[in-house]
Amino acid sequence: MAPGSFSPPSTDRTEQEEGSVLRPRFDANGLITAVATDHATGELLMVAHMNAEALDRTIATGLAHYWSRSRRALWKKGESSGALQVVRELRVDCDQDAVWLRVDCRRRDDTCHTGRTTCFYRVVQPEDRTLEGGAAPGAHTASTA
Amino acid sequence: MAPGSFSPPSTDRTEQEEGSVLRPRFDANGLITAVATDHATGELLMVAHMNAEALDRTIATGLAHYWSRSRRALWKKGESSGALQVVRELRVDCDQDAVWLRVDCRRRDDTCHTGRTTCFYRVVQPEDRTLEGGAAPGAHTASTA
Repeated sequence: MAPGSFSPPSTDRTEQEEGSVLRPRFDANGLITAVATDHATGELLMVAHMNAEALDRTIATGLAHYWSRSRRALWKKGESSGALQVVRELRVDCDQDAVWLRVDCRRRDDTCHTGRTTCFYRVVQPEDRTLEGGAAPGAHTASTA
Repeated sequence: MAPGSFSPPSTDRTEQEEGSVLRPRFDANGLITAVATDHATGELLMVAHMNAEALDRTIATGLAHYWSRSRRALWKKGESSGALQVVRELRVDCDQDAVWLRVDCRRRDDTCHTGRTTCFYRVVQPEDRTLEGGAAPGAHTASTA
């Protein structure tokens, strides 16, 4: 099998959901959803996407690779920042359209491009639907780095 | 503001990433990615999607609502199975195209439609790319329930 090629999704639901063959169900854009959590703490770090090549590279190297939708390019996480993600475990969900990466982070502080340990730093306040946890106005500079 | 309507994404990146206004960035299909973890254990339970109405209902009721892409319908999680998800905390990521729900499960065993506590029950074996954790052949019947 060529690098980056996987078996197609099965039309048999039991095979897709219970089988031992990896059959990623890429969407119309050729992507699956990838969720990364910290292997030690369980904290949700980021949600991103993978195409077949990114999934192949992740499995082959043990380092998280994603597909950058904004840059339209393969994205080895941490290649420039040093915030590499070492994959300790990779799981796939029932219909195989999402993967869960449990990772050890190098330079955990740079997980989010805003310079935080997670992309999920703001909490929705249900009472008034405002967000808490962002930087004070004028205090944040990393987002343009 | 009418139910289900939210402020649009900001063209100002700092406002989108650091501001206190909820500005969900729905995709071309009107959806954001929603990740649910167990509030007590941190385990990843499921990855699903929300449209504006599902997000609105989730915030308003404190119970997880999703958009079922297969049924093309609003999906109150657990409405039929009893596996309701009580939202303890709702977070949004940096560019506001994904949300993280930390939930308490009612009937945790029925989180996945296959009758498991999580949709991520199979582990990818990097050596040969097989999956471990599915049901033995013939042992599984819940997937067709």
